[in-house]
Amino acid sequence: MEALKPYYHTVQYYETDAMAVVHHSNYIRWFEEARLDYLEQSGYPYDGIEQRGLMIPVLSASCEYRQAVRFGQTVKIETEIVAFKGLKFKIAYEIYDQEGKTLHARGTTEHCFLNKDFKPVSIKREAPDLFEFFSKKN
Amino acid sequence: MEALKPYYHTVQYYETDAMAVVHHSNYIRWFEEARLDYLEQSGYPYDGIEQRGLMIPVLSASCEYRQAVRFGQTVKIETEIVAFKGLKFKIAYEIYDQEGKTLHARGTTEHCFLNKDFKPVSIKREAPDLFEFFSKKN
Amino acid sequence: MEALKPYYHTVQYYETDAMAVVHHSNYIRWFEEARLDYLEQSGYPYDGIEQRGLMIPVLSASCEYRQAVRFGQTVKIETEIVAFKGLKFKIAYEIYDQEGKTLHARGTTEHCFLNKDFKPVSIKREAPDLFEFFSKKN
Amino acid sequence: MEALKPYYHTVQYYETDAMAVVHHSNYIRWFEEARLDYLEQSGYPYDGIEQRGLMIPVLSASCEYRQAVRFGQTVKIETEIVAFKGLKFKIAYEIYDQEGKTLHARGTTEHCFLNKDFKPVSIKREAPDLFEFFSKKN
Repeated sequence: MEALKPYYHTVQYYETDAMAVVHHSNYIRWFEEARLDYLEQSGYPYDGIEQRGLMIPVLSASCEYRQAVRFGQTVKIETEIVAFKGLKFKIAYEIYDQEGKTLHARGTTEHCFLNKDFKPVSIKREAPDLFEFFSKKN
Repeated sequence: MEALKPYYHTVQYYETDAMAVVHHSNYIRWFEEARLDYLEQSGYPYDGIEQRGLMIPVLSASCEYRQAVRFGQTVKIETEIVAFKGLKFKIAYEIYDQEGKTLHARGTTEHCFLNKDFKPVSIKREAPDLFEFFSKKN
Repeated sequence: MEALKPYYHTVQYYETDAMAVVHHSNYIRWFEEARLDYLEQSGYPYDGIEQRGLMIPVLSASCEYRQAVRFGQTVKIETEIVAFKGLKFKIAYEIYDQEGKTLHARGTTEHCFLNKDFKPVSIKREAPDLFEFFSKKN
Repeated sequence: MEALKPYYHTVQYYETDAMAVVHHSNYIRWFEEARLDYLEQSGYPYDGIEQRGLMIPVLSASCEYRQAVRFGQTVKIETEIVAFKGLKFKIAYEIYDQEGKTLHARGTTEHCFLNKDFKPVSIKREAPDLFEFFSKKN
């Protein structure tokens, strides 16, 4: 299977703070952007997942900030599913400058599958195509 | 009836931008904070309004920025219902420094009442207490 | 001169609110995205403007919300400088669905030019190229 | 020395997302709110720290989400400095419901001290009062 394209995000002015760098909370938002782009490229756009009655909330998030990102930059985000255990999965992210030379930040998020009543869902039974996708990625 | 208390908001660092002032989009969020505080003080907390199946979306918003607000400041927001026409209402806001001496910004928002299907609702029929409240304020 | 390309923004999940639509404050941020894209396409990227010691703060902003935008959508934003009076200018924005058929929102922002000390700047004298650009657009 | 007061944050509507819960990125912002409140209560308001030419950027952040927080809630955040090694320190946060009964989330942030040129600063030399404060807390 062909590799997915990395995700690019152009820094917005409203993402900066008084230190004249991107506020650290926005990296968590960029992880979400990259994650949903990754799912969409894989054939599982998140609005479609929601329409099937599933939600994929965040169980944990972490980010290590290496070098500040500034307005005027576009960052390149590489996303990878690094663990899948049927009910939960983990994604790792690396945020680089546009050329992919400088690592600005790296982090992870962990997720589970819930139905609309916020109850855990076995995607093996409820969404076998999604189960297969995550199984292959792990 | 006694006057409502003004709303105070302490500027958060994440609300600043690279000009070292509060990003202008946040004033629109502060209007929302002040509006929901106003409704809560009046006996109509917005989560209660939602539980009754009503939504009060924003039809328009405007803000005039007079003097930048910076991190370290707390602002005082005065809120007033300035028009109510049964299906729509308009609120005006003034954002001052904590002591109420310097006007930093002023603005308005307009709203209507919708049900959960995003259809207009006559609160005169569906929520007469809310209708009476808005009628008195106008 | 050739027309500038419209600006496209893909709705992010973090831009939605509990009504399951994009929170109204984000349209003000999208105006900024479209405005800075417009300046960049015109040869005046905002980080370059800042490096010349100029800032272009927002004096006022307004938005009229016609139809809610939801996660899963990409919007097309058309941007136009509608007034320039030497010290101030005004921009108008129209936010459409991706195909440009449905008008979701429209609004304006007004701006001036300041130096790093937050003092008004005559760009006619200090940045004649920028002055010429805005003059032509008006 | 007397204990510091916990920090309370009232959930804002703009902090919710289309799952009708607080978007996970906001917890990272709440950590910042709690951290700066903690410093202020301790006699070190962050705007004062910045005026002394110091910045305290975030080196890493992590959050474990236990139970979703919704609009209508106020959360109580307990903040503690859990490590200080001269150049770096670590803070732990616990986010509870208003009564302190339900743990909604917990997390940590790590920080260093920089000057305005983004160079590491020895606060032992440059800000001995701050050094003493952090030393006692550890």
